[in-house]
Amino acid sequence: MKNKAFSRRHFLQASGAAAIWIPTAAKGYTSSEMLEFYANAEMSVNVSKWELDTPALCVDLDLLEANLDKMASTTLANGIASRPHAKTHKCPTIAQMQMDRGSVGICTAKVSEAEAMFQNGIDQILNTTGNVTPTKINRAMNLRQQCPGFIQATDSPHNARLLSEAAVAKGLIADVVVDVDPGIRRTGIPFGQPALRLAQLIDQLPGLRLRGMLCYDAAAQHVVGFETRKAETLERMIQATDTFELMKASGLNTEIFSGGGTGTYNIDHEIKGMTDVQVGSYVFMDAQYMSIGGEEDVEVYSDFATSLTIMTTVLNDQYEGRVTSDAGAKACTINQPWPIVKGETGMRYRSGSDEFGTVLYDDEPSKTYKVGDKLEVIVSHCDPVVNLYDQMYAIRGDKVEAVWPISARGMSA
Amino acid sequence: MKNKAFSRRHFLQASGAAAIWIPTAAKGYTSSEMLEFYANAEMSVNVSKWELDTPALCVDLDLLEANLDKMASTTLANGIASRPHAKTHKCPTIAQMQMDRGSVGICTAKVSEAEAMFQNGIDQILNTTGNVTPTKINRAMNLRQQCPGFIQATDSPHNARLLSEAAVAKGLIADVVVDVDPGIRRTGIPFGQPALRLAQLIDQLPGLRLRGMLCYDAAAQHVVGFETRKAETLERMIQATDTFELMKASGLNTEIFSGGGTGTYNIDHEIKGMTDVQVGSYVFMDAQYMSIGGEEDVEVYSDFATSLTIMTTVLNDQYEGRVTSDAGAKACTINQPWPIVKGETGMRYRSGSDEFGTVLYDDEPSKTYKVGDKLEVIVSHCDPVVNLYDQMYAIRGDKVEAVWPISARGMSA
Repeated sequence: MKNKAFSRRHFLQASGAAAIWIPTAAKGYTSSEMLEFYANAEMSVNVSKWELDTPALCVDLDLLEANLDKMASTTLANGIASRPHAKTHKCPTIAQMQMDRGSVGICTAKVSEAEAMFQNGIDQILNTTGNVTPTKINRAMNLRQQCPGFIQATDSPHNARLLSEAAVAKGLIADVVVDVDPGIRRTGIPFGQPALRLAQLIDQLPGLRLRGMLCYDAAAQHVVGFETRKAETLERMIQATDTFELMKASGLNTEIFSGGGTGTYNIDHEIKGMTDVQVGSYVFMDAQYMSIGGEEDVEVYSDFATSLTIMTTVLNDQYEGRVTSDAGAKACTINQPWPIVKGETGMRYRSGSDEFGTVLYDDEPSKTYKVGDKLEVIVSHCDPVVNLYDQMYAIRGDKVEAVWPISARGMSA
Repeated sequence: MKNKAFSRRHFLQASGAAAIWIPTAAKGYTSSEMLEFYANAEMSVNVSKWELDTPALCVDLDLLEANLDKMASTTLANGIASRPHAKTHKCPTIAQMQMDRGSVGICTAKVSEAEAMFQNGIDQILNTTGNVTPTKINRAMNLRQQCPGFIQATDSPHNARLLSEAAVAKGLIADVVVDVDPGIRRTGIPFGQPALRLAQLIDQLPGLRLRGMLCYDAAAQHVVGFETRKAETLERMIQATDTFELMKASGLNTEIFSGGGTGTYNIDHEIKGMTDVQVGSYVFMDAQYMSIGGEEDVEVYSDFATSLTIMTTVLNDQYEGRVTSDAGAKACTINQPWPIVKGETGMRYRSGSDEFGTVLYDDEPSKTYKVGDKLEVIVSHCDPVVNLYDQMYAIRGDKVEAVWPISARGMSA
């Protein structure tokens, strides 16, 4: 099965993202072949991303590292910590890269995700979603037993009591933060007195240790226009700050006030009291975030580079004005804005069909494709796209440098 | 970890789908616990679907079997065979149930899906998507070498020549069908002379054996209104029949003329020459198919029952008019129509948020939920939803009878 005839193939190195020459008849490598190569430490094979069997999820390492570095230096300069959200990448390798750059921990959305991260070496974890059933509480407490750096969110007095009982039954004191609703009525307890009373209750319960609060302004993250986004989140978060001050004035532990995200990472330090930002998508970026505009670049949110792409192959070129590819909704999701063909202009990608993508040419496409050609698309919305794949290929230049397991893929429980 | 205290819990048996009593404080079981139970043959545990850790994908066995039986009897009565599409369920157990009811084989959308099916005992497989790269052609020919019942689609002379060369190199004669475009310009070769010439070429190539053609009218499947749907597909498929007749008149092998789907299963036998229907979604149904209307029930397409559901848990009930659940876009996709809360009225489910679902109450909801309550939703669009889960729970009444691996989950390559 294993084809070692690499020397027969030649590929021009990219001189720029838009100028990569794509070999139309390249041998490709399946994911099982790639995993075998890396298990056998045959990294000298220098497989190009254009040779991968498709659809293939790829992360550009230079761009990823630049994104990680920029977030680390920005938060440092702004005097705020980062606690990046692993729901985006679900990949312990990237979580470790974030920790190595000084993040105080990571966030997870589900306890199964937290388990996967801990099993892969990450031991500072804030689970931002409450665990409300006996099963989930049991899972969370089992994790806390093994991982002293595990903190969980709670948003109701009843849940806090259940958590405390479960912790006491295991002989634990479990770390919790109060999840405060920023006014979007999804999760969290209301601002002000309800949040304060919950914090006071936690402080008194025998099985719990209050660490502070979180308030994630999800509604702000994709607001188009930097100034509008800034004004909205600063306005909405005033009450979060007031709540945090109430907790502080009551003598409660307020070491954590976590919130924010990629859309507000350079705004959140202006929210009084906030200690750390739960940024997620900045590692990869996507068409959705590109469309919201940034502080300096009002057209495209270009603070971070689009490091995450999908390699796809053209399956049919027989019909005018379009070609069909092998990456549809099951490989790209149906999130919009649609995936963007990287480095090309005059064409639109659609992934509305389950099994097939479509490239629609405009009047002057920068190139046209033949059957077997590969193309690379920037993803629509990184979080759910990552959740479709078992591994991502870590690319340097155009070569595969590593294959990273997406260990928390499918961990929605 | 394993909790055997089952006898302490009591659950009322459903007297009807809408009347199941949901225990709000039930112990739940994680997927790893469930897999352990079944590995240890502890099926007497009688775990209820309401006890599963969530989100959990469930298939109701009575409904699934009724759907399978109805398709088998309908196609038999209509004098057409079935070759169900496994892209829907990605589950070898269900593929085997289809074969056991007389299907002539299964279809797969990707060669990786075909590999997963073959590795799990299914040996009559028609791969409906062409394989155009050397890697994919190699994978297809390797599969063909092990699986004489493997047939692949091709839609261009160039591809047919590549397939033939690859087959000859392996000492094989590979079975192929011509993929004919029904006029939707996605995959397939145009009707008439182009398709005929491709079939004639295949007939002459040393490595290929022509088995016939496929023509999948994807555009017809979700047309709203039975009569409109029928008229559209019969009109569009006239040229497919003409092409098939051309092939037959040329003395080519025309043993296969495969097409159709769940939306047209009771129309396709009127397409002259068609030998088998590639029905997929009928096993599960979903909100999308429900909305198209049927021959007898013009409001709801109720020919088949909605057997596939997601169990989800309420995480937050603090805000008026709504509750938040743990099944969002990563558990339900963002396909529309949105998931439907099974057996309830006066509420709408939304899964537009990655991690969270929302139940929005209308004026008179049939019930309201508290934190920790479970609810069951009919899926929006079964194919991509199944692709998010590693296993589905096979439910009889409200008890888990088996845990079925979704072996081809994520097999988009």
